[in-house]
Amino acid sequence: MGDVAARLAEIVGDKHLLTGAAIPEDYGHDEALTIAAQQPAYLAKPATAEEVAALLKAAGEDGVPVTARGSGSGLSGAARPQENGLVISFERMNAVLEIDTENHVAVVQPGVTLQELDVKTAAAGLSYTVYPGELSASVGGNVGTNAGGMRAVKYGVTRNNVLGLQAVLPTGEIIRTGGKTAKVSTGYDLTQLIIGSEGTLALATEVIVKLHPRLSHGATVLAPFGDLDQVMAAVPKIISSGLAPHILEYIDNLTMAAITYSEKLSLGVPDKIRDSAQAYLVVALENREAERLRADIEILGELLGELGAIDVYVLEGGSARKLIEAREKAFWTAKSVGADDVIDVVVPRAAMPRFLTRAKELAQAAEAGAIGCGHAGDGNVHLAIFCKDADKRHKLLHDIFATGMELGGAISGEHGLGRAKAEHYRELEDPAKIELLRRIKQSFDPAGILNPGVLFVD
Amino acid sequence: MGDVAARLAEIVGDKHLLTGAAIPEDYGHDEALTIAAQQPAYLAKPATAEEVAALLKAAGEDGVPVTARGSGSGLSGAARPQENGLVISFERMNAVLEIDTENHVAVVQPGVTLQELDVKTAAAGLSYTVYPGELSASVGGNVGTNAGGMRAVKYGVTRNNVLGLQAVLPTGEIIRTGGKTAKVSTGYDLTQLIIGSEGTLALATEVIVKLHPRLSHGATVLAPFGDLDQVMAAVPKIISSGLAPHILEYIDNLTMAAITYSEKLSLGVPDKIRDSAQAYLVVALENREAERLRADIEILGELLGELGAIDVYVLEGGSARKLIEAREKAFWTAKSVGADDVIDVVVPRAAMPRFLTRAKELAQAAEAGAIGCGHAGDGNVHLAIFCKDADKRHKLLHDIFATGMELGGAISGEHGLGRAKAEHYRELEDPAKIELLRRIKQSFDPAGILNPGVLFVD
Repeated sequence: MGDVAARLAEIVGDKHLLTGAAIPEDYGHDEALTIAAQQPAYLAKPATAEEVAALLKAAGEDGVPVTARGSGSGLSGAARPQENGLVISFERMNAVLEIDTENHVAVVQPGVTLQELDVKTAAAGLSYTVYPGELSASVGGNVGTNAGGMRAVKYGVTRNNVLGLQAVLPTGEIIRTGGKTAKVSTGYDLTQLIIGSEGTLALATEVIVKLHPRLSHGATVLAPFGDLDQVMAAVPKIISSGLAPHILEYIDNLTMAAITYSEKLSLGVPDKIRDSAQAYLVVALENREAERLRADIEILGELLGELGAIDVYVLEGGSARKLIEAREKAFWTAKSVGADDVIDVVVPRAAMPRFLTRAKELAQAAEAGAIGCGHAGDGNVHLAIFCKDADKRHKLLHDIFATGMELGGAISGEHGLGRAKAEHYRELEDPAKIELLRRIKQSFDPAGILNPGVLFVD
Repeated sequence: MGDVAARLAEIVGDKHLLTGAAIPEDYGHDEALTIAAQQPAYLAKPATAEEVAALLKAAGEDGVPVTARGSGSGLSGAARPQENGLVISFERMNAVLEIDTENHVAVVQPGVTLQELDVKTAAAGLSYTVYPGELSASVGGNVGTNAGGMRAVKYGVTRNNVLGLQAVLPTGEIIRTGGKTAKVSTGYDLTQLIIGSEGTLALATEVIVKLHPRLSHGATVLAPFGDLDQVMAAVPKIISSGLAPHILEYIDNLTMAAITYSEKLSLGVPDKIRDSAQAYLVVALENREAERLRADIEILGELLGELGAIDVYVLEGGSARKLIEAREKAFWTAKSVGADDVIDVVVPRAAMPRFLTRAKELAQAAEAGAIGCGHAGDGNVHLAIFCKDADKRHKLLHDIFATGMELGGAISGEHGLGRAKAEHYRELEDPAKIELLRRIKQSFDPAGILNPGVLFVD
């Protein structure tokens, strides 16, 4: 065992420090389709913030690059380590420390999964309302990428639901930011700065999340449309209605065919209608009271009819759940049918039709495929890209990202840049902004040990 | 006219650059009670982001400290300039550039007042839901302090409602952050970092704010309680009910007496009940439908009764509006009755009873007065402090702030630190965090020209 390994092992205990070939293959990658795995030199599994601080101090002194890891379900390669690097896995820091029913917050360690937090909050009649597709994802990982998911249209994304952090700076100090309060105006908001920084600024060792009352009644409506533009035009009208859907998704016909086939889903949509549908809207409402929900669903159904839906299906509990689950698994479906990349450009929601038209034209010109679904209420478009040639694909993505940015959007709505899109970011972002981001990075991490190669490329 | 003045005048035009004694007295202060006015050397009124950029470049080269000014309604002295300084007033950049009903956002210049934005959004059936007491406040100023206000319990504070900025860096670059999208995961969130930075990092020249459907039906309930602790205990129960109030305020009996007297308000509360009330809750509900609102008000009334309210008054339109307006003017009432300072500590809402008890004990021990009201749903306590002696008052505030922080809160929930509380911040905050904040400040503003003396003291 080398000097560095011995030092790290002293911090976390021999049992919790692995090196070289002893490190399981999984720790070398996340779920990004285009980022090759890389075995790290060290894997440490700390149990406390103090151990994380000691690890970062040691890494800083020995010039070892550090990559934090939650569940490894990220889609941009931000959890792929460096060859000579240290992976800090938060799998042992996985306790729900507190469900506080008076302040409506939970205090959790970063390794807690969304699944577990959902079970614990449900028992208190509360809910953590950030639901990215993957419930095995960790809260710490969600903080890293500012994860979104289907309920963001009503409840916002991770940054809107995290009130405070305990975090370790790359220089080894442990700080606290924010707290169990919904508002603070006392210095710069470090909570918000760390959220979405993909492990490049500081490592969260405790997360305070906001909880909402869990509403007991919910219903899901599926509406096929003859034309994708109609789907997109319907979205602002549904938002304006005040019905406040917590899910507002679009699914194009190819994606719907793939997910219903792979999940063996029967949604009660007759063949004839399915054949004429170009795209679907999925709208879910929730309420404290069954009667109000029923009335709202009726209003929604009428509205969808006026907006051009071919028909409207109110899905029963079981099939609604299955459709939502199938939609959550769209990434896996895309992967299984051979997608070469999955991207998640975000644009102002009214710009979705133009973005989708242009993206499909670009794909066609490149002899590539682009099919998708996405968070229609948020303008967050998930496209599965079919294009084997890496150079052609880079050019195609560059053009699609540029289109999204020209329409007032950004490269990623919720997956982050990670390693997969860092090069595109360098090509497309205002250099003055990148320079500022680099200076901010420098102000946290003067030695540059946290996740080099993520967000920034040289 | 000196060299500097000539250079600045060339940028904004002679008419829009004032110097020395020609600068009206108002530009030397905001509404902070403890910060003495200071006449600046220069006052510039730019019309464009390009002019702001040129001003900052010139100021940087000539070492002139710069203070941004919206409406001057701040309560912490962040708009008080330096003696040799330049005030950049945004009064000419006061256009509502766009009300976008498809994306549900408005794009405004920083000098737009909340009053004007409210009128413009109302015409579109939408609402910008951040309502700090002072409607003459500017959106730019609200961005600077991360303003909150009464509706934050439902809609969040400024940082939850601003989606993007155009901002000028102190080095003179004009950047854009965020956009008309509710989510972005593409680099560090500069929008959030600039919000609440009190003019020390960058100057916002355009603000994209989120709009909500304006709900047509609203009602306000006033509930007197025999005991402040009961009021505080009621708050989490009301939140848990799912009734989602958009206003949830407490007012102690002395403050209620002062505001009803000064505003000549009659609320229909009989003398006998008023005499036994120690504190009041004000709860407002809103709905798309009159019938649902009526039902919810009934549920709320019953709940308040169960929680110990002496009685429950549903205020009619006129008197409800007057009470809310009077509550908004609580600062002016406090000022008119001779308060020496007004502070706005935030604590986890369940900690409010302990905080208030301890704050009153501290005030009593210092032979000072502390009466208040505040955003009960947010744990944001506004206390008017009566204590003439500046040293004693500093010690008292130090102890009150320290109490708030020990309870998991922060010095300010929405007013900011400005100049008034910068010294307290230095005394009480973790030095590692202050050092990090200073490095972040340095990464934006290497020459240190933006608002020196605000947030940080040497």
